[in-house]
Amino acid sequence: MRIKFPILAVFLEVVIISLFGVFVKYDTVDRRQVYPLFQDVHVMIFVGFGFLMTFLKKYGFSSVGINFLVAALGLQWGILLQGFWHMHSNEIHINIGSMINADFSTAAVLISFGAVLGRTSPIQMLIMAIFEITIFACNEHLVVSVLQATDTGASMTIHAFGAYFGLAVARVIYRPALRNGHKNEGSVYNSDMFAMIGTLFLWLFWPSFNSAVAATADAQQRAIINTYFALAAGTLTAFATSILVEGRGKLDMVHIQNATLAGGVAVGSCADLNILPFGAMLIGSTAGFISVAGFKYLTPFFASKLKIQDTCGVHNLHGLPGLLGGIASIIAAALQVENNLSTGMQAAALGCSIAIALVGGAFTGLILHLPFCEQPPDQNCYDDSVYWEVPIEEPSYESSFHLPREPQQAQH
Amino acid sequence: MRIKFPILAVFLEVVIISLFGVFVKYDTVDRRQVYPLFQDVHVMIFVGFGFLMTFLKKYGFSSVGINFLVAALGLQWGILLQGFWHMHSNEIHINIGSMINADFSTAAVLISFGAVLGRTSPIQMLIMAIFEITIFACNEHLVVSVLQATDTGASMTIHAFGAYFGLAVARVIYRPALRNGHKNEGSVYNSDMFAMIGTLFLWLFWPSFNSAVAATADAQQRAIINTYFALAAGTLTAFATSILVEGRGKLDMVHIQNATLAGGVAVGSCADLNILPFGAMLIGSTAGFISVAGFKYLTPFFASKLKIQDTCGVHNLHGLPGLLGGIASIIAAALQVENNLSTGMQAAALGCSIAIALVGGAFTGLILHLPFCEQPPDQNCYDDSVYWEVPIEEPSYESSFHLPREPQQAQH
Amino acid sequence: MRIKFPILAVFLEVVIISLFGVFVKYDTVDRRQVYPLFQDVHVMIFVGFGFLMTFLKKYGFSSVGINFLVAALGLQWGILLQGFWHMHSNEIHINIGSMINADFSTAAVLISFGAVLGRTSPIQMLIMAIFEITIFACNEHLVVSVLQATDTGASMTIHAFGAYFGLAVARVIYRPALRNGHKNEGSVYNSDMFAMIGTLFLWLFWPSFNSAVAATADAQQRAIINTYFALAAGTLTAFATSILVEGRGKLDMVHIQNATLAGGVAVGSCADLNILPFGAMLIGSTAGFISVAGFKYLTPFFASKLKIQDTCGVHNLHGLPGLLGGIASIIAAALQVENNLSTGMQAAALGCSIAIALVGGAFTGLILHLPFCEQPPDQNCYDDSVYWEVPIEEPSYESSFHLPREPQQAQH
Repeated sequence: MRIKFPILAVFLEVVIISLFGVFVKYDTVDRRQVYPLFQDVHVMIFVGFGFLMTFLKKYGFSSVGINFLVAALGLQWGILLQGFWHMHSNEIHINIGSMINADFSTAAVLISFGAVLGRTSPIQMLIMAIFEITIFACNEHLVVSVLQATDTGASMTIHAFGAYFGLAVARVIYRPALRNGHKNEGSVYNSDMFAMIGTLFLWLFWPSFNSAVAATADAQQRAIINTYFALAAGTLTAFATSILVEGRGKLDMVHIQNATLAGGVAVGSCADLNILPFGAMLIGSTAGFISVAGFKYLTPFFASKLKIQDTCGVHNLHGLPGLLGGIASIIAAALQVENNLSTGMQAAALGCSIAIALVGGAFTGLILHLPFCEQPPDQNCYDDSVYWEVPIEEPSYESSFHLPREPQQAQH
Repeated sequence: MRIKFPILAVFLEVVIISLFGVFVKYDTVDRRQVYPLFQDVHVMIFVGFGFLMTFLKKYGFSSVGINFLVAALGLQWGILLQGFWHMHSNEIHINIGSMINADFSTAAVLISFGAVLGRTSPIQMLIMAIFEITIFACNEHLVVSVLQATDTGASMTIHAFGAYFGLAVARVIYRPALRNGHKNEGSVYNSDMFAMIGTLFLWLFWPSFNSAVAATADAQQRAIINTYFALAAGTLTAFATSILVEGRGKLDMVHIQNATLAGGVAVGSCADLNILPFGAMLIGSTAGFISVAGFKYLTPFFASKLKIQDTCGVHNLHGLPGLLGGIASIIAAALQVENNLSTGMQAAALGCSIAIALVGGAFTGLILHLPFCEQPPDQNCYDDSVYWEVPIEEPSYESSFHLPREPQQAQH
Repeated sequence: MRIKFPILAVFLEVVIISLFGVFVKYDTVDRRQVYPLFQDVHVMIFVGFGFLMTFLKKYGFSSVGINFLVAALGLQWGILLQGFWHMHSNEIHINIGSMINADFSTAAVLISFGAVLGRTSPIQMLIMAIFEITIFACNEHLVVSVLQATDTGASMTIHAFGAYFGLAVARVIYRPALRNGHKNEGSVYNSDMFAMIGTLFLWLFWPSFNSAVAATADAQQRAIINTYFALAAGTLTAFATSILVEGRGKLDMVHIQNATLAGGVAVGSCADLNILPFGAMLIGSTAGFISVAGFKYLTPFFASKLKIQDTCGVHNLHGLPGLLGGIASIIAAALQVENNLSTGMQAAALGCSIAIALVGGAFTGLILHLPFCEQPPDQNCYDDSVYWEVPIEEPSYESSFHLPREPQQAQH
């Protein structure tokens, strides 16, 4: 780790700077009007995704820190890979719009990161970022330019893609020893509070995420409005479903942290279409319901039967709602809410996004399995102290009354 | 709770979606230029109000979580109730401006929530949101359209209204058993830190709150400038007063978390008027002073003599400064800083906002008292574990070294 | 403290309001198009700087609270001091652009605050703010108006200035008794998590900081793009270097919290110049490296040999990268990337910024040494309880299994 990681990181940075030197120039088009939208998306990527994953009691440094590292690498690589598809006389011309798309490409990686959170090394994450963004850029080009499908809020190309890519990786790097969970795999009160910072900033800025690349003024305002109401409706159904499925009629923080966001994922593909606010709310409230149901029933099934350990439940937040979003766009095409939509192309976009994600993820998982990548041993999973200098505690105010006692065993 | 809450939440969502289906359409007017202001207000509602209330040691999940739930319901209901006053051929046309007003209407509910925080059930909060927003929309229409009073930053229609509504509810649901406080009714070090996240985002984006609905470019820039300086001046007086009133000459986190915001509340009604920056600073510094004084002297008096338990001290942050804002607007009218202002109308606006809030709050309180609403028993107040699955703790790093040992040299 | 602080704070506020009454008027120019950039900078000042300094285990209230106080005073004083250099017929005309510059002037003070964090009293900080901003405004006028040097992102006038000013103060108020550190001078797990909130919001909004005052649309978009890539590249090298220099091959949170931002500091002076994205990345990745190296090797040397205690390591985050930024601007001038640049003027700007900072800081340090300023005694350093009512802990959920003992009455 001490030598390998710096070498790999510096090597990647040198390669990227060289490629920037050769290909990347400033665009002369003034795109500053989307800068506020970019900043909202930017906050989602680094604060939203970063803190959403800090719910683990002993993995906060890695969640927010490695998220930071992967996103910083990913946005540079994303500029290049997306740019290669749109070169002008062998030059990549970048503006603030390119920065939005670069942030988008990192979102897919961060979603996949959530599936394997706690069971991978920083080296594995750097390598996964490089491979996933490369494959992501190809799939995005296929969906948007070749199939010409609509996916403004990227339910299919980012959320479903990122989720199924991560699940495929998780399947390949499955750890039988963690079959029955791990003692560090739980939250504490404050780690759940930190995670809510991530949840709320994702929730608040999702309308910007779904509207940032909308084509026209009308489409952009529709995307903002539809996402706003899809999220609000989904939040109510998520709360309701959480209490319903919990044996003791209580709210589960995991559901509130994640399923409240499902409406934003699901409305993505149709965000800028004329589906009317109540249409967006139907999509959103359905997403809130299936997301909680997924956490309650699918995640345990995946872990026990399919040998897929999904730390953050990305399948429930991004996978299922992403699927729903793709299906919604097929229905929207069938209903001809916009006349240039084709059910066939929307279905093809959904299908290839998932297929490419699964194959690409499985392939990437095999590479991450190579000894070079230094997977952490089972007993060190979900533990910052493997990769971070963790402060040795003087009792802080928070704990200044803790007196001699025996350590207790985990139950979460 | 397990059955009632889901039924109520889903019922409300179904009603709302149906009404949206019948009445709500997209507006064709492009209001994207106010989108950055909307996003600032949006952050205030969910992160600002949500985290501001997390200061209680065992009520963080509920503070940020139920705030989230209530706001998500409130903004949907607010769109309808405010829309009914401005229908075009039986349609409600919504744009980003409507989203700002919807967020505004939830602010009133969240202020009232602060008064009763820890002593109410989620079911009660859903019902309060429905009633309060309905009454709020009527009062707002009365103040703005009928009386044609000025209240751009809503000192009267949101802050004073929300505070006195909440206090009236608190009076009706008074708990004699908590006369001398409750063992959970206090903060810990980290909960006070989380609350500062709320304070700062409220403070930072308050200029957007007070200027978002300003009529002209000049008025909007004035509202931004006045609020910025009123807050800054009020922050200094709040710090000064906090140390002055504290017996031991120390700062009290409660004052810093709340009274530093009073300047933004108080300058609201006059925010867009030509009161000059120093006028705004006079209003702001006065507000910072009276707010701290209110926490120190009024809150205990309210609890002991008036039988009003005000958990977050909303009377000091929103009530008194809201009153001050209304009075400032009367003075501004008397000084003719703008020629279309009438002292009478401003006074009437202030009076009816408070009167309607008190009557509406008392009425709502009676309804929340019905057994259906499932008020928590006294001993379960201010405790998340009644409504949330609270993690059972492994000692985290934060507390993992509290076994008998000699103190170590800290390292950072 | 109980009497002195309120008198000083109120006195300053009265003086400021009086000066505002005499000099400050609204500008009629509509500058609302920079409001989103202002808001980003505003968040950096209060949330970014405030939370970045909360890493200390027992100093979170003071870090975020005194940062809040100092910034609120500083922005008012900054408006006046910067305004005095640009009066129109004895009036200071303010708009949103002035608010950006006011926030900038506070940034210098907050950087210096980081150097002496934990060893000063609130009274000392108020006085330092008044002196530093006065000197800052003179140096800025000299650099921008007299020398006409370029420093759009203020590597020299804010970052290097603030750092060396603070180091000079720290040298003068050196505490021999803390030669070997202090038992409170360390972090705990959650305090490091809070600090990451500050880091990320600084990182995310840095492109706004470096572009807010850019002259033209092209220059502004370049400043945004260059800062975005300089930060991303610097983040990778900071992570790589952190693992490399740490004996056990682990990441050090101090480096991640700070050195990841060095790229934004270093690219500041050249931010809006046509240095191409790869040029920005070279500057950024160099900054990330030297910043970590500074934390590892220079900070201990400063403390032991130069008798300069630098709590937050501002020399590594702002000092060295600020120097690098100035040097980069000299090189850019030499390379004639823009034809109105002069190497001489850039060098002069860098030299006078550092010289004036050192002299001004030493002078201010002598004043802060006066008994009036009430420096805290050595044993009370890095401890909130000297200036704050710190909650007496009921066991929170976080620590609710650390019994047995009898419960105490909480107080909030």
